[in-house]
Amino acid sequence: MKKLILVRHGESAWNKLNLFTGWTDVDLTENGIKEAYEAGKLLKQEGYRPEVCFTSYLKRAIKTLNQILDAMDMDYLPVEKSWRLNEKSYGAIQGLNKADTAAKYGDEQVLLWRRSFDVQPPALKMDEERSPRMDPRYAELSDAEIPLTESLKDTIARLMPYYKEHILKAFETHNEVIVVAHGNSLRGIVKELRGMSNEEIIKFNIPTATPYVFEFDDAMNLQKHFFLGDQEEIARKMNSVANQAKK
Amino acid sequence: MKKLILVRHGESAWNKLNLFTGWTDVDLTENGIKEAYEAGKLLKQEGYRPEVCFTSYLKRAIKTLNQILDAMDMDYLPVEKSWRLNEKSYGAIQGLNKADTAAKYGDEQVLLWRRSFDVQPPALKMDEERSPRMDPRYAELSDAEIPLTESLKDTIARLMPYYKEHILKAFETHNEVIVVAHGNSLRGIVKELRGMSNEEIIKFNIPTATPYVFEFDDAMNLQKHFFLGDQEEIARKMNSVANQAKK
Repeated sequence: MKKLILVRHGESAWNKLNLFTGWTDVDLTENGIKEAYEAGKLLKQEGYRPEVCFTSYLKRAIKTLNQILDAMDMDYLPVEKSWRLNEKSYGAIQGLNKADTAAKYGDEQVLLWRRSFDVQPPALKMDEERSPRMDPRYAELSDAEIPLTESLKDTIARLMPYYKEHILKAFETHNEVIVVAHGNSLRGIVKELRGMSNEEIIKFNIPTATPYVFEFDDAMNLQKHFFLGDQEEIARKMNSVANQAKK
Repeated sequence: MKKLILVRHGESAWNKLNLFTGWTDVDLTENGIKEAYEAGKLLKQEGYRPEVCFTSYLKRAIKTLNQILDAMDMDYLPVEKSWRLNEKSYGAIQGLNKADTAAKYGDEQVLLWRRSFDVQPPALKMDEERSPRMDPRYAELSDAEIPLTESLKDTIARLMPYYKEHILKAFETHNEVIVVAHGNSLRGIVKELRGMSNEEIIKFNIPTATPYVFEFDDAMNLQKHFFLGDQEEIARKMNSVANQAKK
């Protein structure tokens, strides 16, 4: 049997402040670190033994993975990082409060920016300070690859080549793979694996620091998928993500 | 200019208890975590910008690197881990107190085990619980590669292929490289870089969590080398390592 474990990063400082984060490199809160460590303890207790790890270029995901590996006593595992696993870019609304933005532009507009499949928030300028072009970690990207804003569709489009050529490919030599990333980059993977429609995936909320396990047969046919942990707590977390941008 | 930054891991639980550690996967102490973070702050403040990182399979080195990257705000850097950067194996004396061992076998015998170039401590058995053969992280190693005990000469012999094929090779595409490892694996690199004799390297003590910078011209000729930080504190740390196994 092959297993893919998806984990959304733990609570970040801007989740807590209810700001749009996107590509902003915000740190985990103390609670986020604790959540991540607990996720690792749960994976260990349930007998998971990933062999290779994937994460984004953003510290809230990287540090969630580090906590998980530490709790599993598997710090030594190989880790591959890619900008393609980064969160959806929220463009020029990055750093704005979700509730304030909803009060100003209306719930509906903000819900479109957050949860429509193909509507992009207002874009950053290529040469402004907040632009990824100004950040040396993205030096390898061409101007065309630099996201100044993204819809979920755009996020999925830049994620998919990496998902296929790296993550799925890892199953040729490994049985168990863990991916620690973000709400929207993980949506892309879940949509693909479960064959969900655009409408279904935008309504699907992935709870923070909760292992989401996909089991496959040896030919990589999906057999089942489930969240690990206390199912009531998971439902509460999924609901809390859904309600963030209500006024 | 090319730069290689070597860092020995911060204080570990067994450094503090004065036990022989070797390949035992002992964690950092709170002080070790703090030392590591301070090393990262110092590197950032002095303008270092490593592009790729190497570390061992042991968590005291990996977590030292994680702290450094976090302090530098460079968590996203690629990290390559290898068993070849692990500490020297102390074989069957792993887990024994350094001072007790000195009291039992004599300072001289223990100094030979710790600091001779080619004397090996007593060996582990291949199939005993403490043997690396029993640890899934070393499944990729052949029996011949599993170290049941090592002299410094042995440690250097298994380190050198990796140093040449991975670390030196990284300078073909990068200008700045950081290696976070262990007292004896780093001795191998320092011996090679400085052309030190067997006698010189065994007397050379690398202080914990102190960036040791080697600068090269573009043809990789060594120009200078120096420890970063408060030179008195560095001398104190070097001296404290030297005195660990005194009765």
